[in-house]
This record gives sequence, C-alpha cells and structure tokens, in this order.
Amino acid sequence: MATNQQVVLASRPEGALSAENFRLMESELPALEDGQFLIKNLYLSLDAGFRQWMNEGASDNYLSAMPLDAPVQSIVLGRIAESRHPEYPEGALVMGRTAWETWSVADGSDLMTIIDESEGVPLHEYLAALGPAGMTAYFGLLDIGRPRRGDNILVSAAGGGVGAIVGQIAKIKGCRTVGMSSSEEKCAWLRDELNYDAAVNYRAGEDLSSQLEHQFPDGLDIYFDNVGGALLDTAMQHLALGARIVLCGAISQYDTDSHEGIHHMWELITKRARAEGFMFSDYMDRYPEAIAEMSDWIAAGKLSSPVTVADGIGETAQAYSDMLTGKSRGKCLVKLA
Amino acid sequence: MATNQQVVLASRPEGALSAENFRLMESELPALEDGQFLIKNLYLSLDAGFRQWMNEGASDNYLSAMPLDAPVQSIVLGRIAESRHPEYPEGALVMGRTAWETWSVADGSDLMTIIDESEGVPLHEYLAALGPAGMTAYFGLLDIGRPRRGDNILVSAAGGGVGAIVGQIAKIKGCRTVGMSSSEEKCAWLRDELNYDAAVNYRAGEDLSSQLEHQFPDGLDIYFDNVGGALLDTAMQHLALGARIVLCGAISQYDTDSHEGIHHMWELITKRARAEGFMFSDYMDRYPEAIAEMSDWIAAGKLSSPVTVADGIGETAQAYSDMLTGKSRGKCLVKLA
Repeated sequence: MATNQQVVLASRPEGALSAENFRLMESELPALEDGQFLIKNLYLSLDAGFRQWMNEGASDNYLSAMPLDAPVQSIVLGRIAESRHPEYPEGALVMGRTAWETWSVADGSDLMTIIDESEGVPLHEYLAALGPAGMTAYFGLLDIGRPRRGDNILVSAAGGGVGAIVGQIAKIKGCRTVGMSSSEEKCAWLRDELNYDAAVNYRAGEDLSSQLEHQFPDGLDIYFDNVGGALLDTAMQHLALGARIVLCGAISQYDTDSHEGIHHMWELITKRARAEGFMFSDYMDRYPEAIAEMSDWIAAGKLSSPVTVADGIGETAQAYSDMLTGKSRGKCLVKLA
Repeated sequence: MATNQQVVLASRPEGALSAENFRLMESELPALEDGQFLIKNLYLSLDAGFRQWMNEGASDNYLSAMPLDAPVQSIVLGRIAESRHPEYPEGALVMGRTAWETWSVADGSDLMTIIDESEGVPLHEYLAALGPAGMTAYFGLLDIGRPRRGDNILVSAAGGGVGAIVGQIAKIKGCRTVGMSSSEEKCAWLRDELNYDAAVNYRAGEDLSSQLEHQFPDGLDIYFDNVGGALLDTAMQHLALGARIVLCGAISQYDTDSHEGIHHMWELITKRARAEGFMFSDYMDRYPEAIAEMSDWIAAGKLSSPVTVADGIGETAQAYSDMLTGKSRGKCLVKLA
C-alpha cells in the first residue's frame, strides 16, 4: 500500500493562526471496503471559511469543530485510483470534502462529485471558478446580490479566490465594480489584471469612509462582503436605497474572540436595504447550470481565476497562514506531486 | 380666526428625551390660499420613529432633521373644516403628516389621504391598525418576514403600537408568537390580552439568551425587531436556518450617540439568514389592500389595537417621553378636544 501524508491540526489557533498550528503526519492507507474508493489528490483547496471550524466548540449547521490531531478538513480535487463503489469508477476526476492529505478514502458522501472534464479548462479551474470559490461567487452575487445593469458594486477581499470571480461576473452583468484590498500594489493589480473599474486600499492613510464617499457618491447598490467587522460597518454607511449586502465571509473575525461590533445596522432601515448570508453548498442542485455558464465565460476569455499555487503537501500550513494574512493572490491551492 | 396650539421642539434631546425638550405655543391661523385646506385635528399619532429626526443633522432619505422652535412633525387624524382644494372637501376625514397641533393647514402632499370611513371601526383604529403602525406591522411582517404556518416568531417591543399588531397578524397566519417586553406585568398582559403564546422579560434576572434558548430550542424563524442594539444581537444567536430579521425600528439606539455594536452578524452566514429594513411609506400604493384585509380582521374580532390615549395637546410631550421609556402600552395617541 502507498503511504498517506496528512496535515493534522496540532493545536487550536490562539489569535492569529500560524503554520505552527499544524503538523505533517504519515500513515499507511487502509484497505478499501465495499462502497469505498481511493482518490489520488491532485490539488488541495485552501478556503478561509474552514478557519472557523478550527476553533474549539465551533459547531454549526454546516460542520463540527475539527478534532485535534486529525487531518484538517478541506475540499480536494483528485483522480480515483482504485474503486469498490459502482458509481465512482477508477480514472474519474472527483471533487469533494476530505482533508489535507495526498490520498483520500471516500464513500461518495461529503459533497463528492464526479467532474465532467471540459476540453481546454485547466484542472485548477475546477477548484477555482468551477469549484467552491466560483460557486460561492456565482450564487452569492446572482442569487443574493441580484445585480442590475449599471449597479455600483463594492467587493471586499477583491483579489481573493471568491472576490476575483465576483468582480468579473459583475462586469459581465454590466455593473461598475470597485475592489477593496490591503495595499496599493494589490489595488493596481485589481485594476490592471482583474478588470475592476476602481480599487480602494483600506489600509491607506486616507480614511476608508472618505474613499467610499468618493467612489460611491450615490451609494453602493451591492456590497459583496468577504471580511465582516469594521469594513462591513463602514460600507453600511454608504448604502444606496434598496442596497443588498451579500454576507459571504467574515475573515476579519475568525481570529478574534471578541468580534468587532457593527454599529450601523439601522442604516438598513432608512435605506430599505437587505443583508443576507448563504452557503455555496446549499446550491448543489444548481451547480450544473452555474458550471455550464461559467465554462462558457472561461472559453470566451471573459473569466479566469488568478491563483497562488503552493508546491507539495509540506507547504500547506504555511500557504494557509499566508492566505489568511493577505499575502497571497486569487484562489489559493496546493499542487500535489 | 381660531387659535392654533402647537407643540414645538424647544431643544434637542441630549441622552434621554424628556418633556422639557418641548414647548406649547399659540398662534393665529393664517387665511387659506387656493389649493389649501384646514384640518381640525382629532388625534395625534405618537411614533417612536420620529425621534431620530429630533437629532441635529439627522437628515436621511425620509425626512430632514426637525428645526428648533418649529412644530414637531407627526402623523395626525382630523376632519377638514374648510377647504380651497377641489379634491379635499369639507367634512372629509383625513390622515397625513403635519405636526403636533390642534389645527393643520395642508395642501394634499405629505402622505395626506382621505379616509374611507367604515361602519363600526373606531376612529382611533385609523391611526392604529389602519394607520402607520398597522401598515408597518402588515407589510413588515408579510412582505419582509414572509411567515409560514408553524413558524416561530419573536417580536420586540411586543406590546407597542406596531408589535401588538404584528403578534396578532402572526397568530392569524398560524405562527407561534413570543413577545419580548420589559416587565413581568407587561409580559402577563402580552399573554392574557394580546394573545401571544409566550412572553419573555428581557429585564428579568434570567439571562435573555437562556430564555430565548428555552423558547426557541430549534431557533427562531422570524425576529420582528423594533428595538435594535443588544436585543437584536442576542436574537441573532438564536436563528433557525433561513431566518428572517425584520428591521423595523431601533428604539434602543435613538437616544445614544455611540450605537451598541452587533457582534453576531456572521450568524447570518451560517444560518443563511436575512436581515432587511423597510419603511411603511414605501407601500402607499398597497395600503388599500392592507386596509381592506385588516378591516375584515377587525370586523371578525381577530384584531384590535391596544391604545394609550393622552387627553389634550398639553399632554403630548409627556406622553411621548413616557412612550419612549416604555411606560405606555399599545399605540400611543393624543386625543384633542
């Protein structure tokens, strides 16, 4: 049998997460039972959303808190190397929720789907535009945000795996897009490479609220929020009538015990505005529709995912920490040998 | 000419509002111009929502900050005593936004509507269930909250002008209703007189969150929020999947410069929940539909408004202050001679 390499949660992050919270472990792969199959993983997806389940007692309706010393749960892309499951044949490309590991044993549960490989779509896009980040961007923007031609849209973590896709879809839908990021260099990249109409550096010397006032003199119609906290509170002070806030993530809040307060909720009343959360996994039935449309956009050159790719499972922990502190760009992946 | 008695804003409330912030003034009524009509006011409506426009610079999309030494803006119910406007005949019963005054000169703008008097409907209901409070309850609950039979609903300021109607409509729609109020005495009244299934005293010794956990073991489907602040933050920790928060008012926040923070916004993500604000005045086109349905409910004995009625314009300021500090019950009105 092959040896499995797995990254386990060695300790719960206190304050900011670091690579030290994880440990690489080797183990023998077990023999397959009936109804199981073995996946040779090709890419691991690094997702900020999983950070919250690394906290003690962080159970919710989606996942339970990850146990210590167990492999860190993750979305992966891989190819079936061996199968004792009739619906998952050897050779099939699959995506599902297993763990940070080189091999996964699966049984078809945990969001496991067989990927219909399209010609000319790079493999990494199945974890990016056509994967969880892309599904999050697609359904969050279109179903929750409901963009109309001419709408003014603000995206936080605008160069992240989700944000970069949101910005591009919003342009396709005829909106004016403003990306928010943490440095001048990233802002230039948002404008030049990711096609945002404008970019705002929330760590600039200039007050963020003044920058938003300048960018949205008539208010913003949609705020696609990946960050939560103070950025959300500031954006709430610049809503247009009937604005929609797509609550997608709260990166800024995962590391802190005492969450930053939102002090401008009542702006939602005077602006007749809506803030709504969602999870991409609720839309599984509609993935085919989204994947078909997004594949067309990729083929037409209207959509592509910026990626940061770490090389080898040994780099996983550091890459995840870098992503959470904003050092990476686009969708973050680990490419396995 | 008759003498007009008006309550003016004498000073801007600092901290809690008191009757001292207002002053009674007398003036001669001006002669009517073409296109104007004179209303003899029968009832003044006391609405918490108007409190915010008493602050300096409190302009928003709805109203501007009220000027000092001018009559306090208010919804009123009155009968036309004299008219030089072809569409507003003498004798008609009208409701509109004028001011705390015994007589109003109007021109048909400012939400002024002629009331189609129904047999057996007490006059005060036109300012209660069939007025702004009722329209707020009706459209907020049905359009924003979208109740389904069997839903579990929490209402804050549950015995207030809006809350009392929300609770009754929710029962008509087959929901389980829990009212939140500030004393054991009021809670008993919510259960015994207003037909709530249960009541929660947020000032009780027992922690509010534990009380909500007890009342909503499976989470709450709708929170109809008239209060904002800490109560909203606590309710956010008890949402069911797909919950709707109807953001109707933020009484708790009107008096304070530094708004209490909401620390659990991200619960909206994991619960796929929605928080949405609205203003009753956006639904003017649909008032007839609401008034027809609510009148039927009143006629059938399924709906009635609890009221606190102050007697005479001299009592207006004290009655308004009492309402904001929770001393009154139901819809607060001033009956004029």
